[in-house]
Amino acid sequence: MNDIEKLIQIMGRLPGLGPRSARRAVLHLMKKRDSLLQPLIAALDDVHRNVRSCGICGNLDAADPCAICRDSARDAGALCVVADVADLWALERIGIFKGRYHVLGGVLSALDGVGPEQLAIAPLLRRIEAGGISEVILALGATVDGQTTAHYLADRLQGLDLAGGRLTISRLAHGVPVGGELDYLDDGTLIQALKARQKL
Amino acid sequence: MNDIEKLIQIMGRLPGLGPRSARRAVLHLMKKRDSLLQPLIAALDDVHRNVRSCGICGNLDAADPCAICRDSARDAGALCVVADVADLWALERIGIFKGRYHVLGGVLSALDGVGPEQLAIAPLLRRIEAGGISEVILALGATVDGQTTAHYLADRLQGLDLAGGRLTISRLAHGVPVGGELDYLDDGTLIQALKARQKL
Repeated sequence: MNDIEKLIQIMGRLPGLGPRSARRAVLHLMKKRDSLLQPLIAALDDVHRNVRSCGICGNLDAADPCAICRDSARDAGALCVVADVADLWALERIGIFKGRYHVLGGVLSALDGVGPEQLAIAPLLRRIEAGGISEVILALGATVDGQTTAHYLADRLQGLDLAGGRLTISRLAHGVPVGGELDYLDDGTLIQALKARQKL
Repeated sequence: MNDIEKLIQIMGRLPGLGPRSARRAVLHLMKKRDSLLQPLIAALDDVHRNVRSCGICGNLDAADPCAICRDSARDAGALCVVADVADLWALERIGIFKGRYHVLGGVLSALDGVGPEQLAIAPLLRRIEAGGISEVILALGATVDGQTTAHYLADRLQGLDLAGGRLTISRLAHGVPVGGELDYLDDGTLIQALKARQKL
């Protein structure tokens, strides 16, 4: 296998790129050596050398602990549990939540063989047992696996023997997405939206 | 902008990847540092250092002239003109054509401002004027721009004053794609297929 075929094969293993689009991407890189190939190599190298997982929350950052865990202006008493770093980024983009995070590294999945041991659940329990956290938001996807994980975590958290009083556990609201038409909504969402109707 | 954001921005400039899929790809790379990120950096580096354009045909290879141009078992008298290296690879995959290639680097396009000067047309004419080539296959896409380019090239080639006799110029056949249903075929293709019908 020559150098180009090897590169195409590796690129094809990225999510969202198949063999065909990997070939297209590689040819594009060859056409834009100075403006794209070289900067891409440099950027990958920088990330490889500089970026690590935060030992506390699992976020990706140039420093460990990460900028969010180090930020003393953020509320250390509120912990938002997410499945992936991408979810953490999504929540940071809206900029509403001012607490800290905990990245599980996935959700429980019987089908994919993901049990509690494969996720950062033990470190989560240790963080909460260490005290100082009064609210946990389970910000997991509204999928079967996401909700299974949320229920499992809620059970485990409620079973903790906490010295410092009660722990508030919540999940994200389910309902009609903003901009959504009722007509196009699935039944499950509509049921949730009706049950959780809010007084005006 | 931090290292990760920079990498996501550069990855998002690859064809087939938008900002969202670039983010996903980068997170995937971070999860598979040893099995994907490191091999990707090495493969990009190898390609950057080793692969170059063939000075004769425009193919990408570790050597210049490329393996196809150096292969004396291939018919130097037959030249297949393609728009891009990807087309050359597609033809090599079927393994039927045993001549040499000429990569134009695109097709004429009034809309995108691509004129004959932007393509490797002058080098193509020089190759043919140098003699030894008896057949030219214009293997360009059956798009408006591809066919415009093929007609333009046919005109230029027929206008050449060749010492060594006649030059056969052909294009790929148009017709019903193998496995194609007539019912789903566009009118243009059906007209071409009917006009070029073949005796059994």
